[in-house]
Amino acid sequence: MEEMDHHFMLEALEEARKAARIDEVPIGAVVVLDGKIVGRGHNRRETLQQADAHAEILAIREACETIGSWRLDGCTLYVTLEPCPMCAGAAIQSRVKRLVYGAKDNKNGAHVSGINVFAGEFNHEVQVEGGLLGEDSRRLLLDFFKALRSSRDKV
Amino acid sequence: MEEMDHHFMLEALEEARKAARIDEVPIGAVVVLDGKIVGRGHNRRETLQQADAHAEILAIREACETIGSWRLDGCTLYVTLEPCPMCAGAAIQSRVKRLVYGAKDNKNGAHVSGINVFAGEFNHEVQVEGGLLGEDSRRLLLDFFKALRSSRDKV
Repeated sequence: MEEMDHHFMLEALEEARKAARIDEVPIGAVVVLDGKIVGRGHNRRETLQQADAHAEILAIREACETIGSWRLDGCTLYVTLEPCPMCAGAAIQSRVKRLVYGAKDNKNGAHVSGINVFAGEFNHEVQVEGGLLGEDSRRLLLDFFKALRSSRDKV
Repeated sequence: MEEMDHHFMLEALEEARKAARIDEVPIGAVVVLDGKIVGRGHNRRETLQQADAHAEILAIREACETIGSWRLDGCTLYVTLEPCPMCAGAAIQSRVKRLVYGAKDNKNGAHVSGINVFAGEFNHEVQVEGGLLGEDSRRLLLDFFKALRSSRDKV
């Protein structure tokens, strides 16, 4: 882990909370270049009704816009949950230097859970580290699903 | 393969040609529901300067908009080239029923080349078939890179 990782993961968690507030599964992400956030995103799949509106994709898209290039050379992507294959693939495609995530995703994770997309021999290698503030991320998710179940039980 | 597959792959190839005409690597895709095209896309990574502006992502995004849902239940995604991990993951995320592709991508493919993203135990299984009009797709790509090299040699 690097010095500012903790700080930026807190920002990703803040994004995750934004998702929870609009009834989306709370997952958040930020893209950082030279100590500055250049892209932010939180899961908005239901809000936008777009299959790819995951936190990472939205953060990467905003970062490309900020930087004016599809190449996010030297950037770090922070995300509260282990990325799915689509988002792991997007990290590779965008050429981010590092990816730091929080909690594991036993169901859809594409690093240490299920398959490891980053192990493929693609034309770019991303440095991946997991487990940063994973318990905070996990707690957010558990609370969200608990509230969802409880509201459904009331219907 | 199904009856209309050939017809819709020709449409995906038409999208790939659109990409070539704007100096983008020629890859095209269409999303089909009940015999009708609900989304089209061609690679526009350089034009849009967006890391995720692959043919499949753009076609899926348009299909979600057309249908008004992130769930592309019953849809088939046709794409001229074996999808990369990001696009293979997007196919899973969008819940398309089938994915039919043309040529193999030895470098970035995420089905029979490199890793197989579809073999992961995710919450949706996509039926994947490759090799339809693969030679036409391959020829388009080879011609594109040949022209690119030749124009570079002239500089």
